Amino acid sequence: MRIRFHDARILTMRDNEECFQGEVWVQGDKIEKVICGEWNNDSDEHFDQQIDCMGNLLMPGFKNCHAHGPMTFLRSFADDLPLQEWLNTLVFPAEAKLKSEDIYTLMQLAILEYVKGGITTSFEMYFHPEIIAKACIDMNYRVVLSGTVFGDENSVNRAMDTLRQDYDAFHQCHSLVDYRLGFHSEYSCCKELLKEIAKLSHQKETPVYMHNSETQREVNECMKRHGMTPVQLMNDVGLFEYGGAGHHLLYTDEKDREILREKDIYVVTNPSSNLKLASGIAPIKEYLDCGIKVAIGTDGPASNNSLNFFKEMYLVSNLQKVKYQDAAAIKPMDVLHMATVQGARLLGMSDCDCIEEGKRADMILIDLLKPNMQPMNHLVSNLIYSGSNDNVIMTMIAGKILYANGSYCSEWNPLDIYEKANYIIRRIEYEISS
Amino acid sequence: MRIRFHDARILTMRDNEECFQGEVWVQGDKIEKVICGEWNNDSDEHFDQQIDCMGNLLMPGFKNCHAHGPMTFLRSFADDLPLQEWLNTLVFPAEAKLKSEDIYTLMQLAILEYVKGGITTSFEMYFHPEIIAKACIDMNYRVVLSGTVFGDENSVNRAMDTLRQDYDAFHQCHSLVDYRLGFHSEYSCCKELLKEIAKLSHQKETPVYMHNSETQREVNECMKRHGMTPVQLMNDVGLFEYGGAGHHLLYTDEKDREILREKDIYVVTNPSSNLKLASGIAPIKEYLDCGIKVAIGTDGPASNNSLNFFKEMYLVSNLQKVKYQDAAAIKPMDVLHMATVQGARLLGMSDCDCIEEGKRADMILIDLLKPNMQPMNHLVSNLIYSGSNDNVIMTMIAGKILYANGSYCSEWNPLDIYEKANYIIRRIEYEISS
Repeated sequence: MRIRFHDARILTMRDNEECFQGEVWVQGDKIEKVICGEWNNDSDEHFDQQIDCMGNLLMPGFKNCHAHGPMTFLRSFADDLPLQEWLNTLVFPAEAKLKSEDIYTLMQLAILEYVKGGITTSFEMYFHPEIIAKACIDMNYRVVLSGTVFGDENSVNRAMDTLRQDYDAFHQCHSLVDYRLGFHSEYSCCKELLKEIAKLSHQKETPVYMHNSETQREVNECMKRHGMTPVQLMNDVGLFEYGGAGHHLLYTDEKDREILREKDIYVVTNPSSNLKLASGIAPIKEYLDCGIKVAIGTDGPASNNSLNFFKEMYLVSNLQKVKYQDAAAIKPMDVLHMATVQGARLLGMSDCDCIEEGKRADMILIDLLKPNMQPMNHLVSNLIYSGSNDNVIMTMIAGKILYANGSYCSEWNPLDIYEKANYIIRRIEYEISS
Repeated sequence: MRIRFHDARILTMRDNEECFQGEVWVQGDKIEKVICGEWNNDSDEHFDQQIDCMGNLLMPGFKNCHAHGPMTFLRSFADDLPLQEWLNTLVFPAEAKLKSEDIYTLMQLAILEYVKGGITTSFEMYFHPEIIAKACIDMNYRVVLSGTVFGDENSVNRAMDTLRQDYDAFHQCHSLVDYRLGFHSEYSCCKELLKEIAKLSHQKETPVYMHNSETQREVNECMKRHGMTPVQLMNDVGLFEYGGAGHHLLYTDEKDREILREKDIYVVTNPSSNLKLASGIAPIKEYLDCGIKVAIGTDGPASNNSLNFFKEMYLVSNLQKVKYQDAAAIKPMDVLHMATVQGARLLGMSDCDCIEEGKRADMILIDLLKPNMQPMNHLVSNLIYSGSNDNVIMTMIAGKILYANGSYCSEWNPLDIYEKANYIIRRIEYEISS
């Protein structure tokens, strides 16, 4: 397929390039050409589809850098509880009843929501990576899978076998699927397991990802167990030698931040999840001020409860204003950069970070002709401060249009996915109660 | 017009009524009939329109209890500044260049956004109430106008003349338009003016509304000027004898809260505006705990920047969780109650607070067949925690459908309104700079 988008405002997100009027051609799964201004269409070019963007905004899709997509089944199932109680009394018992085939449907439901809101890649930390990968490939959705192992002294070997096998099976396994080493968290892993994961990371020369310092309680308990913070412990056992990221990172001290900066570890911030679980507000401004890179995630729909990047971008910006009592704490462009370019780089997808010839064609079209985008005083402020999911009128991944003007591509059957997802949670409720 | 909505899930918001399957008939601008279960359609009834809700949710529209709609022209114009600097260096100079005819277009733009997101009434505090009223009547939009006078010792008479004339002109002046006494704030009014407004309120036996205790600085300066907090000063001069509300009310002490509760003064909370201007997080949980009533507002699009009740409802709930480090700080149903029933009551519209026979037909239809609403574990949690503007698929005010399935009613011309709004702000920018 060769597709031409014309009469667009284009925000490439390349370096500090300003928004310009022009067009983008897509050939197969790549961006073929980016034209500033009007194309001289005297030349003889064939396109399978030509899309008049009517002055709307073409930009890179959002990169959701922390998610547990299949947890859609727990949306609004376990609300109004703090993290540990939420995990132990509701989330873990319900997850224990999940069948592997459920994961396929639940990931499909997450993809429907991602694509509708302009998310073109997510970093998925959940069980059954093979099923998540299949759901993503079947729907032409781009995914990076994260290891999510955990365990005590008795299960180190089993956890490491899983991690090694999954890495070998899924690392760069498909043009739409990649894999990164990862574990659940310090509090769910013994030190021996952390050391083994570090060794594997050194052997493969590859970064590691994990939940990190999400609550003060988590940090305090790590201090008791190991005499140092989670960040310091992980650095100590060698987990940070090839980069990576920590999800959440709300509670860090100066020494932690020094490590994160030196080792080039990203912070993935999930502000909505941190509010819902009453975990707090991450010190994003401090991270940026000392040169630590930040990307954004939605976390899972059990702890959010939506998979909505406009909500997350709004919160990243506005919660910092109130945290630091500084209305200029973070600029809107910095947030948009986190949501696109930084996200792509964190995921090792530098071929997918901006709109440029030769890069992967993961793009979205933003409707500027809705009242929340008018008047056009400042495009990027409009996106971050008043943008909403329903401004997304087209989502393309790997050159294929998956969503346009309120409808999904014809191969998808959302009503069937909803019905199956409802059946799964009703079955699990029944099994838990009986 | 007689319209039948059938096959709906109905959330009436009446007392503690559960959601049920059924239908609602509308005749003229009122709700004619609410039917639980299936209607025996053997009887001979004529409808001008029959709408199959396909199991989607019919509920009362949202009541936006604090807004400055015409400030749409300043959306994304003055971001990243604290309240006083924002007002003095950017907002006031731009407002000084507004022509009265501009207000008509700018209010139309706000109405486009309100209606699209399910807001069916707003409480508008801005200059030129006659023009706002005209824009609302022309678009069949329901509005309550608020007085917005201010002034020092030299302008008490002029301000009081305006307030008296506007009250007489607009109070209950039209089925779609009402008016309430109001003034800008303590910090923009001398004590003499406050006393005169209180006298007028006693004479008319009517409540008074104002910005109140939005920042700590405002409270501190009032303490210096008058030796008491704004709430105590207003109570002292008799402004609270017939109820009313304070907009924002972020910084209150125990004595303030005692006054608010005793005098039945509502708090109108505007969480998004408070974040943007780095004002803080209002103590909503404490208000509810001590029996003070709370409603919700968007504030103006210069300080928000969108007019999106889903964002406000989400923030009312989730900011309290993090403020009190309590994931159960406020229940989703309490927030929905603020957004509908409490809002209507604050505005003196008890004939518009829920879906019931004889009440005004201001209703919205929420699309439950979008991925952010699936699975259906808890309807109200889905609305508050994962709901979004684009779940609104129909907005009816006074029995007229103004928005349905992504399109406005045919008499409206959004593109023309956008063009005019852009022209206004470009003209003002030019005038300021030259």
